[in-house]
Amino acid sequence: MAEIVAIKPAVAEGPVVSQQNKGVLRLTLASPPANALSLAVMAALTAELDRAKADKSVRVIILAAAGKVFCAGHDLKELTLHRADADKGKAFFEQTFTACAALMQTIVRHPRPVIAEVDGLATAAGLQLVASCDLAIASHEATFCTPGVNIGLFCSTPMVALSRNVSRKHAIEMLLTGETIDAATAKEFGLVNRIVPREYLNQIVTKYAQTIASKSSLVVKTGKEAFYAQAEMGLADAYAYTGRVMVENMLARDAEEGIGAFIGKRKPEWKED
Amino acid sequence: MAEIVAIKPAVAEGPVVSQQNKGVLRLTLASPPANALSLAVMAALTAELDRAKADKSVRVIILAAAGKVFCAGHDLKELTLHRADADKGKAFFEQTFTACAALMQTIVRHPRPVIAEVDGLATAAGLQLVASCDLAIASHEATFCTPGVNIGLFCSTPMVALSRNVSRKHAIEMLLTGETIDAATAKEFGLVNRIVPREYLNQIVTKYAQTIASKSSLVVKTGKEAFYAQAEMGLADAYAYTGRVMVENMLARDAEEGIGAFIGKRKPEWKED
Amino acid sequence: MAEIVAIKPAVAEGPVVSQQNKGVLRLTLASPPANALSLAVMAALTAELDRAKADKSVRVIILAAAGKVFCAGHDLKELTLHRADADKGKAFFEQTFTACAALMQTIVRHPRPVIAEVDGLATAAGLQLVASCDLAIASHEATFCTPGVNIGLFCSTPMVALSRNVSRKHAIEMLLTGETIDAATAKEFGLVNRIVPREYLNQIVTKYAQTIASKSSLVVKTGKEAFYAQAEMGLADAYAYTGRVMVENMLARDAEEGIGAFIGKRKPEWKED
Repeated sequence: MAEIVAIKPAVAEGPVVSQQNKGVLRLTLASPPANALSLAVMAALTAELDRAKADKSVRVIILAAAGKVFCAGHDLKELTLHRADADKGKAFFEQTFTACAALMQTIVRHPRPVIAEVDGLATAAGLQLVASCDLAIASHEATFCTPGVNIGLFCSTPMVALSRNVSRKHAIEMLLTGETIDAATAKEFGLVNRIVPREYLNQIVTKYAQTIASKSSLVVKTGKEAFYAQAEMGLADAYAYTGRVMVENMLARDAEEGIGAFIGKRKPEWKED
Repeated sequence: MAEIVAIKPAVAEGPVVSQQNKGVLRLTLASPPANALSLAVMAALTAELDRAKADKSVRVIILAAAGKVFCAGHDLKELTLHRADADKGKAFFEQTFTACAALMQTIVRHPRPVIAEVDGLATAAGLQLVASCDLAIASHEATFCTPGVNIGLFCSTPMVALSRNVSRKHAIEMLLTGETIDAATAKEFGLVNRIVPREYLNQIVTKYAQTIASKSSLVVKTGKEAFYAQAEMGLADAYAYTGRVMVENMLARDAEEGIGAFIGKRKPEWKED
Repeated sequence: MAEIVAIKPAVAEGPVVSQQNKGVLRLTLASPPANALSLAVMAALTAELDRAKADKSVRVIILAAAGKVFCAGHDLKELTLHRADADKGKAFFEQTFTACAALMQTIVRHPRPVIAEVDGLATAAGLQLVASCDLAIASHEATFCTPGVNIGLFCSTPMVALSRNVSRKHAIEMLLTGETIDAATAKEFGLVNRIVPREYLNQIVTKYAQTIASKSSLVVKTGKEAFYAQAEMGLADAYAYTGRVMVENMLARDAEEGIGAFIGKRKPEWKED
């Protein structure tokens, strides 16, 4: 459908393929079949996200995956290999979970909206990726679970993201049973926004991303940052804070342009970032 | 259906019409077609709410609107006019968002339950009004959106109320896309409690309000205040606080009367406020 | 279905019947018809829960009730009797609500998962019990309400648990109207996880509990504790905290065993607690 204007070859050979089509950056986990979050994959994904922060041409990011598994979570073989280390793996485990927490917060703190495009199993830290994205669109074939409890490693970091997406008893049930839920249940729980037919998933997510990319980047960045900040505040503080955000926003050029265009019944032309 | 016992003429001529029928105060936004929240409208609505705090005859408040739009949010023309001010509108914008935050918190902190009766579009700060009310009943024709992102002014204050009503991904989707949701979706998201046929909306909301008005005002006030206070606390603090609230409540006359009536299988007679 | 391997006779004669079948402890409220939470019942239930904390043979707890009412909340007759005290009951009321808050937090802080098995009316502090459990499975006949507002005693402590299970407008509607919701609505609201036919309720909950009991106790304990702790933190703190939990978990024997078994495609053998 859409013309691919840039494929960065260096990155395309790594575990994360980066493609940009106008304002929409598509990052594809490209280590099938598991797309596991090894240290190298987390580093590559974080690096792509960090690069996109500084790239004004990127307005929306899609996080997708190659193959039938969206992401199977941490690389258990890599973790297990480090049990042979002198410290029994402690330093490597710390490095892994520090990198994971940084990656997830990079998504949440990113100035651009990040949309998960899920067409397969998202499990453990893979589910955490989906939950950490601002939005998620899945195919009917997508499935979700936090099965750590079955292998002796409770999904304690995935639950940070999961429990901020779905209600308490739903989150605890997923965590304690490790059972897999289907796309319809994930939508009912609030983990994904929309379910679409697999054959149109890519097309629909791209269109959806383009819609958001057509808004003012400055305004989207302002709003996304304020959303997560106010979510951690009491009501009075949240209003004091967002009140200041609104005044700042009103004084910016894009608000003057956008409101003027709305009143004048013309199309706005965004300038700022 | 119900006999209107008092219409305050002075206020009826303003942008907010106030009608009281026994314990139920109906405040109607009366600046159709948009029912925009100009500074004057916010002041009038806040004044009505403040007056009702001191009026023991008011036991429940309904917030309704005249015309096909429940409330279109802030008055963009008024805001735009002040761009000609020496400070480019900064002082006026601050005044507007301070008044807005005060109005919304007046609803939340109000000793009486406030029920939104929504029969049309509630957008931006109009949606914020609905989300700030304790309860909301809508007709099938009601619609909801936070479209600020489309005009360069992100709905950063509306999202404070929205994100305390609906789950995270639902809130972000509404905020980033600006798309309109219908009444059924709003109910599914948790933004409204009930959907009823338009022709019975007024009657059903009035009856619903009367039911709540038949409870002890003191007890309702105590409970509403405690609800929002404990919502911002950790579990241990919430229990320590509400435990004290329960003891106070038990020692009040209306609890003695109510529990006595329940045990004695008779109708309670509330006295306190 | 399952063989009962131990019935503790001393306790079986009290208001809470305790039965253990392998790793699953079933605690049954046994004061029908109301199963009211008198001081004695709360003490007995708390004592059973405390005892189970120290008993390594207990891996999951089911909280059930005898008769058609799951639990009708506090014992209003007991509370009323103490109005004749010199202090008009104040000390007794304080004792009651302190005991209630301790009981509910004992469930939340308990190292073992607690599952509510609900086959009848759960009202006021009875609903609070259900909301405080980690999981809840109900029959189609189960009903739920917070009717304190009708008897002059707002459900201010039950709402602490309720409002951490269901969304804001749903919680407030239940609290202000006192209306009863059916099992389907409770599931829609997120108050119960599953609804099953009454004749299979016991069997299904037992099987469900056994499934969770088959996981590593250490891992379940670690995860449950971390869940409620991180729920009260901001995002950065939650990740810093759960990151440490994950490293600890990785260094425990059961993670090494579980991950090793997963990679080796064999069944894990849990050892720790």
